[in-house]
Amino acid sequence: MEQKKILEIPYGTRDFLPTEAAEKRVIETKLARLFAGWGYDEVVTPTIEYLETLDKGSSHNLEPHLYKLISKDNRMMALRHEMTTPIARLMGSRLQERKLPLRCSYISSVFRYEQTQTGRQCEFYQAGVELMGSGSAAADAEVIALAVRSLLSAGLTDFKLCLGQVEFLSGVMEQYQLAESDCEALKEAMEKHNLVLLEQLVDGLNVNDSAKKALKSLPLLNGGQEMLAKAREMALNARSRRALDNLTEIYHLLETYQVADYVQFDLGIIRDFSYYTGMVFEAYAPELGFPVCGGGRYDNLLADFGNPCPATGFALGIERVLLALERRGDGLPETPKDVYVGYGQGSLEQAVAKALELRQAGKVVELAAAPGTESEAEAMQKAGGYKDLLFLS
Amino acid sequence: MEQKKILEIPYGTRDFLPTEAAEKRVIETKLARLFAGWGYDEVVTPTIEYLETLDKGSSHNLEPHLYKLISKDNRMMALRHEMTTPIARLMGSRLQERKLPLRCSYISSVFRYEQTQTGRQCEFYQAGVELMGSGSAAADAEVIALAVRSLLSAGLTDFKLCLGQVEFLSGVMEQYQLAESDCEALKEAMEKHNLVLLEQLVDGLNVNDSAKKALKSLPLLNGGQEMLAKAREMALNARSRRALDNLTEIYHLLETYQVADYVQFDLGIIRDFSYYTGMVFEAYAPELGFPVCGGGRYDNLLADFGNPCPATGFALGIERVLLALERRGDGLPETPKDVYVGYGQGSLEQAVAKALELRQAGKVVELAAAPGTESEAEAMQKAGGYKDLLFLS
Repeated sequence: MEQKKILEIPYGTRDFLPTEAAEKRVIETKLARLFAGWGYDEVVTPTIEYLETLDKGSSHNLEPHLYKLISKDNRMMALRHEMTTPIARLMGSRLQERKLPLRCSYISSVFRYEQTQTGRQCEFYQAGVELMGSGSAAADAEVIALAVRSLLSAGLTDFKLCLGQVEFLSGVMEQYQLAESDCEALKEAMEKHNLVLLEQLVDGLNVNDSAKKALKSLPLLNGGQEMLAKAREMALNARSRRALDNLTEIYHLLETYQVADYVQFDLGIIRDFSYYTGMVFEAYAPELGFPVCGGGRYDNLLADFGNPCPATGFALGIERVLLALERRGDGLPETPKDVYVGYGQGSLEQAVAKALELRQAGKVVELAAAPGTESEAEAMQKAGGYKDLLFLS
Repeated sequence: MEQKKILEIPYGTRDFLPTEAAEKRVIETKLARLFAGWGYDEVVTPTIEYLETLDKGSSHNLEPHLYKLISKDNRMMALRHEMTTPIARLMGSRLQERKLPLRCSYISSVFRYEQTQTGRQCEFYQAGVELMGSGSAAADAEVIALAVRSLLSAGLTDFKLCLGQVEFLSGVMEQYQLAESDCEALKEAMEKHNLVLLEQLVDGLNVNDSAKKALKSLPLLNGGQEMLAKAREMALNARSRRALDNLTEIYHLLETYQVADYVQFDLGIIRDFSYYTGMVFEAYAPELGFPVCGGGRYDNLLADFGNPCPATGFALGIERVLLALERRGDGLPETPKDVYVGYGQGSLEQAVAKALELRQAGKVVELAAAPGTESEAEAMQKAGGYKDLLFLS
């Protein structure tokens, strides 16, 4: 029993065995190179942040999802639950003097207490970027295009990126003068894709029938450019119309980026962080029931950290990409293992010299840890997946 | 005040700004490639482990150094303080059936509450390997040679690797029939390099004068092969003699590995983990007052996790390597930044197309987030460190 307990790992965490860890490294290396190629500089922040810092950036129901710790001087800390807030903190401190716009990237573990399921763990790995200091549609388009390129470079092909705009919904709710609490309840129902609840909530609102019809139709506002045209036909206020104009402008640029084929609109997207203020998006692979990637514009968060400027970005779930690839049956190519070097009694020195020589030539070489027979070496070669065997008798 | 607090990071943690993070990634990528080239497969384990797991592998005074958390089902957890114990746990569970010897590597953050100083943080990054399932001197020599190659590949050149053997000291203490508590006190004094305390402790022991002289000379037993010969002249028991024989055999193999020039002996080395059972080593760069790398043989730890087999390994401190390079004035070469693409009003689409084309050709390209003048683009090019400017008017 005691023995069993020390072999357990905490709820929602996982080990990556060699093949899985190798795939993770391949994807992370590709993404690091891609982000660098688009001018994004990597940053690394602490795994632990003060609770006040993480709270600043987040929605009201964050705390139950945090892994909390107490510092030696009795301040509450927590493991970071995402990377946008820590980077916002950096923008208010050590990156404050940098020339804007500033592009940052990260590849990090993050932590959230959740009900786990395949592809949804409590500790998981995210790769992402933030483009800070520009409010332009060009900045949004760049970030979305980079998200598409990231998924392509990771090996996914038939994903869909769903693009929305939180200001559209805010405009609609403003137009019907809904109470703050009603807005929150509607958003929560939409976020959970609970259409039955949404209808019930709308039926309970003190608004006229055409308003009810419009509110109930919100989750249906998804599709291609023709849907945008249809949305325009709703009786909209200026705020909602600006949101649609913004999406039109971004989409046009995505055509220039040659990624528009991956993009469709969904005006019902509500992301689970409250800091979004403009375009928002989520990418879905057919193999998974949850997004592999998501992001959006957050123009107010950086002001909370003392450096008011607009910003946009995305994060991609490394394990989710790996899971989609696995379900599709496309494992990533493993690093080729070249030569297993075995040796008989008294030939260790020759074997060491040979292994060094082969490694210097760029080969992946495993050297036996003890002398043995050729057939023992062959068994090790097979177990290790090495292409060739070199045996020094 | 409130504003200031949200900008703080917890004691002993740090942010890696772009240049620092880029250096960290360069080193980690090199080490990952090197470890793979020697047949070590990477594994990734959870950041959080159950306290029982970490306690199993460690010395009596571990707990004050751990970052503890409580799981939702009220079990004590802690952030991992090193990677050897989590990998031992894996060897007792999901890696149990693998053919031995098994070679694993990792590149991970680890956490220890300590008094911080430059190069000694509470969250820090380690890269290392474990060679499990072989008790041979060849296995030890491979691990030491790989440690030397790791430091060389990270860019260090004039480091020294100090090699010891914990069985030598154990043999000496056994010979003089010292009480367990006296052994612990002596080891602690040696670990802290507190020679005054060591002398006091030895003077207080109930042993004869020649034994006192021998015990006081332990910290002086360091140097080249001639020191080993001198140590042999002490009146040794079989246990201590076997330790010296083991070091002689390992050293001979290190000559074959062409790394012996970096190695000297130090029979007074006490590593700060109690699981070591054989050879132990620490590597020092002249720029730092603490080891950049350390490791050793631990033949009993895996039995504690239900898979009894001998093992050996090392871990290297990424930040310490970076600090040594920095103090030497040798920054790592940064990724070259090729082209900053700016554009005038109405030329965004051409600029996007041009940026895509350059990136496809492998260039690192940053695209302006908004139209501007050529001189604005020039300022951004300089701020971002881009070699060339491309301006589409």
